[in-house]
Amino acid sequence: MLENTGRTELSSLGEFGLIKHLTQFIEVKNESTVKGVGDDAAVINYKNKQMVVSTDMLVEGVHFDLMYVPLKHLGYKAVSVNVSDIFAMNAIPRQITVSIAVSNRFSVEAVEELYAGMITACNKYKVDIVGGDTTTSKSGLVISITAIGEADAEELIYRDGAKEGDLLCVTGDLGAAYVGLQLLEREKKIFLETPGVQPDLDGHDYILQRQLKPEARKDIPVLLKKLEVKPTSMIDVSDGLASEILHISTQSELGCSLYEEKIPIDPSAYNMAREFNLDPTVCALSGGEDYELLFTIDPADYPKIKANPDITVIGHMTNKKEGVNLITKGGTTHPITAQGWDSLLNK
Amino acid sequence: MLENTGRTELSSLGEFGLIKHLTQFIEVKNESTVKGVGDDAAVINYKNKQMVVSTDMLVEGVHFDLMYVPLKHLGYKAVSVNVSDIFAMNAIPRQITVSIAVSNRFSVEAVEELYAGMITACNKYKVDIVGGDTTTSKSGLVISITAIGEADAEELIYRDGAKEGDLLCVTGDLGAAYVGLQLLEREKKIFLETPGVQPDLDGHDYILQRQLKPEARKDIPVLLKKLEVKPTSMIDVSDGLASEILHISTQSELGCSLYEEKIPIDPSAYNMAREFNLDPTVCALSGGEDYELLFTIDPADYPKIKANPDITVIGHMTNKKEGVNLITKGGTTHPITAQGWDSLLNK
Repeated sequence: MLENTGRTELSSLGEFGLIKHLTQFIEVKNESTVKGVGDDAAVINYKNKQMVVSTDMLVEGVHFDLMYVPLKHLGYKAVSVNVSDIFAMNAIPRQITVSIAVSNRFSVEAVEELYAGMITACNKYKVDIVGGDTTTSKSGLVISITAIGEADAEELIYRDGAKEGDLLCVTGDLGAAYVGLQLLEREKKIFLETPGVQPDLDGHDYILQRQLKPEARKDIPVLLKKLEVKPTSMIDVSDGLASEILHISTQSELGCSLYEEKIPIDPSAYNMAREFNLDPTVCALSGGEDYELLFTIDPADYPKIKANPDITVIGHMTNKKEGVNLITKGGTTHPITAQGWDSLLNK
Repeated sequence: MLENTGRTELSSLGEFGLIKHLTQFIEVKNESTVKGVGDDAAVINYKNKQMVVSTDMLVEGVHFDLMYVPLKHLGYKAVSVNVSDIFAMNAIPRQITVSIAVSNRFSVEAVEELYAGMITACNKYKVDIVGGDTTTSKSGLVISITAIGEADAEELIYRDGAKEGDLLCVTGDLGAAYVGLQLLEREKKIFLETPGVQPDLDGHDYILQRQLKPEARKDIPVLLKKLEVKPTSMIDVSDGLASEILHISTQSELGCSLYEEKIPIDPSAYNMAREFNLDPTVCALSGGEDYELLFTIDPADYPKIKANPDITVIGHMTNKKEGVNLITKGGTTHPITAQGWDSLLNK
């Protein structure tokens, strides 16, 4: 990287110079990457495997606030959220393309930081950056990543394969990323009102890391294979548990009963949610950005997963006419509705 | 489409509603599209073929001005410029993913127009929209498309395969898209200074179409196969002839002699350039957005292409130490330099 002694203007390198500068650190790791960056298109060879493709766009001011998101973390997160979709198909990510639109407000050093984070994530997930586009923008930063992976046809897991009676399972815990965001927003507000005050983030490592540097569950497809469990449906939790349960239910033409008391929430997220007068269950249902995997399994497979601390059974699939419901700790039943990005639109 | 009787706010549909609404018109055309829109990722099966991937981002205020670019044309162009990269590999585009960031300034009807243009182009190029992302933006419109195609390994044509003595060829004509842009900019300026004045675009169909609704050369890989010519290198003309010649020369480690008098320029573009006091050759060299294919062939193949009105020989590849030069009509020699997006940055 350039020595971090000053600010280099993007215009001093130009488009081709910037691309050349950024891509010099890319090392191809996968045999399937026949040709990476540097031609009209990348060339990939998966031989007899199926190819899996997913794309996600992150927009400044909508998905991230550079006041509290370090660019390196942002780069890392941009890759994580994309490969997460590939894992949610039970496939292995191999390549990504990266397009960024960046205003002159950013220096070459800033774009390098962003790339450094992406390359760190690529090393972690063993994926190759095989192409992309770099352009100017009139205002904020936009990152669009397409992730490409491979799987045997019979290993792929779709959203529509759940059966009535299947158990609904989730990995890890939920809601922490959203609570982490609330903490960052609060400290930002305090800082704007009283400049000079240092943000009070001590002791909140877990919820901050969940928000700023989420990990995709690359371990889960491996674990499921080891446990000899093939989920009947799977999705990653990007928009919130409620939204993902509705996707599986709708596409599998089923209902679902979700038990509030079973939803895994980390104590630090639970306590912080309470401090914000937020219902921790609502944070898990509608917060999103957890990047855990939500899946359904045949009840016959329950013994294989029950001892695993990383997988929690949170409900079961029902007949469509029973609807998609949350059974609260108090025993009452509430229909589950989705939030998605509507909440962002109405902010 | 919705009846065009009014303005429907994006927030009235929400993210999932908008995606559902827009994707209902998508029909899968390719056998290789195993699973399109609607899961965490699309699934594609090219069997024994190689996969080719390219990505491009279009940003409002940088790549297009909605004051004179109809949204339907913009959608069409966004697809054209992406599949053009796939043709430039001598591959066949099959799938695209589409990500858009759109502000509340746009109505559902506006986004529908954009999609209608993309779907028209997808029908023309026989590609399937297999995924994407739809999000809000704080200001302008950003479109990021990833195009995916297939080819036999031995059919792929890279930028680095040119040999000394190879003939440099280009399809169609150059510079018209840039001249079309100058005309649109002039009429916009007049309109802003004297509102109510109708833009004077009559008789300029060709240069306007080249700018607003460019076509990717899907016919050229087919034609080359029919002529039994396999170019030694190939690239599409997106940034301007100068920039593309430099890519081929640099990556093939060669020099190049380009003859000004050979550069194909349509008379309407030539005359309009003159009207703007622009050098038509400079428009061809640095204007870009022509989406023609530039390629090199073994001189032994010359008899096979010489009678074809759609292919012009414009120069030949030389030893690296001779440099990359333009031989002017007057017989003088000038080194060729690239512009790329530097010119945009410095505007």
